[in-house]
Amino acid sequence: MNDHRNEPTLSDVSDWWATNISRIEPNRIDLRGRPVQDLIGSISFAGIIWLMLRGETATTGQEHLLEAALVASVDHGPHAPSIAVARMAATCGIGLNNAVATGVNLLGDVHGGAGEQCMTLLNDVRQRHSEGIDVASAAGMTVREWQDRSKYLPGFGHRFHTVDPRRDPLLGLVEQAVADGVVAGSYLRAATAIEQVLADGRTRPVPINIDGCTAVIYAELGFPPPLARGLFVLSRSVGILAHAWEETGQGRRNKGPMPPSILPTFDDGSRHDGS
Amino acid sequence: MNDHRNEPTLSDVSDWWATNISRIEPNRIDLRGRPVQDLIGSISFAGIIWLMLRGETATTGQEHLLEAALVASVDHGPHAPSIAVARMAATCGIGLNNAVATGVNLLGDVHGGAGEQCMTLLNDVRQRHSEGIDVASAAGMTVREWQDRSKYLPGFGHRFHTVDPRRDPLLGLVEQAVADGVVAGSYLRAATAIEQVLADGRTRPVPINIDGCTAVIYAELGFPPPLARGLFVLSRSVGILAHAWEETGQGRRNKGPMPPSILPTFDDGSRHDGS
Amino acid sequence: MNDHRNEPTLSDVSDWWATNISRIEPNRIDLRGRPVQDLIGSISFAGIIWLMLRGETATTGQEHLLEAALVASVDHGPHAPSIAVARMAATCGIGLNNAVATGVNLLGDVHGGAGEQCMTLLNDVRQRHSEGIDVASAAGMTVREWQDRSKYLPGFGHRFHTVDPRRDPLLGLVEQAVADGVVAGSYLRAATAIEQVLADGRTRPVPINIDGCTAVIYAELGFPPPLARGLFVLSRSVGILAHAWEETGQGRRNKGPMPPSILPTFDDGSRHDGS
Amino acid sequence: MNDHRNEPTLSDVSDWWATNISRIEPNRIDLRGRPVQDLIGSISFAGIIWLMLRGETATTGQEHLLEAALVASVDHGPHAPSIAVARMAATCGIGLNNAVATGVNLLGDVHGGAGEQCMTLLNDVRQRHSEGIDVASAAGMTVREWQDRSKYLPGFGHRFHTVDPRRDPLLGLVEQAVADGVVAGSYLRAATAIEQVLADGRTRPVPINIDGCTAVIYAELGFPPPLARGLFVLSRSVGILAHAWEETGQGRRNKGPMPPSILPTFDDGSRHDGS
Repeated sequence: MNDHRNEPTLSDVSDWWATNISRIEPNRIDLRGRPVQDLIGSISFAGIIWLMLRGETATTGQEHLLEAALVASVDHGPHAPSIAVARMAATCGIGLNNAVATGVNLLGDVHGGAGEQCMTLLNDVRQRHSEGIDVASAAGMTVREWQDRSKYLPGFGHRFHTVDPRRDPLLGLVEQAVADGVVAGSYLRAATAIEQVLADGRTRPVPINIDGCTAVIYAELGFPPPLARGLFVLSRSVGILAHAWEETGQGRRNKGPMPPSILPTFDDGSRHDGS
Repeated sequence: MNDHRNEPTLSDVSDWWATNISRIEPNRIDLRGRPVQDLIGSISFAGIIWLMLRGETATTGQEHLLEAALVASVDHGPHAPSIAVARMAATCGIGLNNAVATGVNLLGDVHGGAGEQCMTLLNDVRQRHSEGIDVASAAGMTVREWQDRSKYLPGFGHRFHTVDPRRDPLLGLVEQAVADGVVAGSYLRAATAIEQVLADGRTRPVPINIDGCTAVIYAELGFPPPLARGLFVLSRSVGILAHAWEETGQGRRNKGPMPPSILPTFDDGSRHDGS
Repeated sequence: MNDHRNEPTLSDVSDWWATNISRIEPNRIDLRGRPVQDLIGSISFAGIIWLMLRGETATTGQEHLLEAALVASVDHGPHAPSIAVARMAATCGIGLNNAVATGVNLLGDVHGGAGEQCMTLLNDVRQRHSEGIDVASAAGMTVREWQDRSKYLPGFGHRFHTVDPRRDPLLGLVEQAVADGVVAGSYLRAATAIEQVLADGRTRPVPINIDGCTAVIYAELGFPPPLARGLFVLSRSVGILAHAWEETGQGRRNKGPMPPSILPTFDDGSRHDGS
Repeated sequence: MNDHRNEPTLSDVSDWWATNISRIEPNRIDLRGRPVQDLIGSISFAGIIWLMLRGETATTGQEHLLEAALVASVDHGPHAPSIAVARMAATCGIGLNNAVATGVNLLGDVHGGAGEQCMTLLNDVRQRHSEGIDVASAAGMTVREWQDRSKYLPGFGHRFHTVDPRRDPLLGLVEQAVADGVVAGSYLRAATAIEQVLADGRTRPVPINIDGCTAVIYAELGFPPPLARGLFVLSRSVGILAHAWEETGQGRRNKGPMPPSILPTFDDGSRHDGS
């Protein structure tokens, strides 16, 4: 360090913060190479999300599909930890931005991360299929391999809904997009093949859930798996904000998870499980 | 507490989490009274933001104006603390959601909160005007009063841009919306009157900045002041996500604020100021 | 900007991050002017908290009092929003550090900020007393003035405890420290005078609560009011971490605020209040 | 759900928040079975950290070792992302608690998580040794296996210090604790064996770093690996708070990562790397 090759310059400082996303100079704001004044009024909010993340503009068909996925995930009520903690945060005398950040912080591997993992799962099926195995068999092999590792198959099944009302409209839009030539459909086929594997011989099927449906859409649109979580963050932030704001209006202070008259159980170790 | 009137019931527990925003039951998801399956594919992302926050659907004109404001604020490059910290967070081995939350956490009174304060400022002018004072005089009185308290007038001036490229297209859209009968225009008039006051006799005017422009839009659309910050959060989250994701791709670990070969000054107290 | 006076140099970059707290150079780590190797093994954890925040070392008496306040606030169970959200966060597949940050984020004006406000309240009494008014009268005047503005008097009363078990030991330690000449006692006298005002003629007194007791200690020790919140953050982080860690061991995923079989009430607007 | 086995009761609600850590009832606060009034004034801050995390009290020797590790990690200056973002956060108009939470949020796998991984590494050596292999050989085998997977060996080497001034005093305290019978020393032996492997035949050795030294201590004291990160959070929070507070006093608003007159490089894709 500090040897002659590394003697720092102001250029090194500028380069340390180099970015391809925006170019901000006095009186100039370009986003992905487009002057911001050309975007305002002409691009939709979903459209600029695509532009900022991908570096180019979406076609109408692509944007429509992205928009449907973003709309579908905005909220799942106070049982979702992200929503509940934002409501509690809103009663603690912190800013609305801090309450939203609190909710977003919880959208981890287990709460929102399933979409990212599901894209990997679907890629497994596609990879096997690309090597000449039919989709149904590829799905069967993939499911068995994943189920050996974990009882949760990301993107399938729901602890709450037996038929998630978001499944059919979302997959219907993907089917339409395949018919219109907007997307290729290989992820959709992989997902429905897995769903079929999980239904065979079962009395209670394990349908594609919301994480699975949006994973299909994001994968068909060419987003890399980590952005499935990123896009979920943008979508769920809407519900988090709405709930934090509603709670603000109720005037509670220091809201706990249940009415104050109910005391948590003191677990002296004699209980047999933690749930 | 725990007297007979307050003996808790399961109803109290349900009521503790009462909400008007969403109704989630097995196989049912209603958002603001609309089944989610009716929204998917038919409402835009900006449209559902309006629905979730307002409880009703926007008109096309309202949605167009909201969308323009959301688009305009997505990014202001790595000099914005929200963007810089999200990039640094992305190098520390935490989830993309945690990196976004880190950035959002910084959108406080000083960084994003100006829109909320500007709406209060504009309301002061409107209040005076409603009492019979002409707008120009009302703006002058308001400016003098606010400047007595602080050297910052929220929504006006920029440390960086002398002419913010986002000003004209945003205010132009508001003018058009006034002409189309979408909004009334009183906040626009208050803001331009203040801008005029600040320009009179100055060689360097203090134009409406991005916080001021979006405050005009959110106020014209009927949002309460705290939601100016809330909407800014949704908008800037897009840029925060894009930058965190770009940083992830650069493979840095544990990124500090400047190249490691440059050491922070040790301030032994002999320096005359902290900046 | 960018005119000849402001042409930046590498020194400006170093100065941008100037600090008096630590001096970190290759093979050198000084904290507040002390080589870290001289501190390890010879200073307590409470002692280094004092050193880092104050720039000098504490006396044994000062450290003992600080330590008592830090110990007293570590936990208040799952009803405290900070604790509850950290437990929920721990089930969402994020790091233990992210779960702790989630809890700390909630320690705002209403949840932990009372100590900071209480120090201002006590300063009001002292100020009046320093102008020649006896403490009891000064307390009465201050209480009336504050109660005109808000029904909450920061640092007094508890929604839960009628006699907070932390009050007597904490105030007893302050009394002892006054007797030992460690602190002056003026904040203690102001606080007990207020407590007396609030008890006069009441069947249910409003005793000093934990925020009030720690505010007395931090004020007696010379900490500025905002650090009452800062020190509470360090203290409560211990409980937040312990609870997040315990929850991790219970193996729950995506923990909501109540058992999943209980649904939140849908509030269609016919309910008369939000609580 | 909602079938007769699962019909919820108020007991289920209490059990949902069951904890062994604290028992909070009106006028009663027990921490790990001890009345809080018995702890205040008699237990140190490091002591209550041990009690809360372990459920029992530490011996003097254990507490002394824990305290040394907590002291050693409090700060590493503004180059540490956790410190830098907290300083930036403090200029954005958010609470001091929110600024601390912002810093803590960054203490992930790459920034603070090394201690947790190092404990796993040391366990590998101990496991091999317990199977009859001498420590030096066990260390060699473990190092080769880990280096096949990653170029970073957690707990060893530093990008900044060739000799970390914290190494010798920390390991010296562990040696003393072994001599005193406080801890067994097997983790210390594993760590120094790895250090020897990394030094053999090198002109530039790769010494145990601070994450490695504290991992040795936490492991010798019987903490599970994830708590290495948890304890680092408690320690580093002190430095984060001190820096956020210092920044508050400097009066800057909206502080970016470098002086505003220096612009980030716009990376049009022609640069060959991202650093």
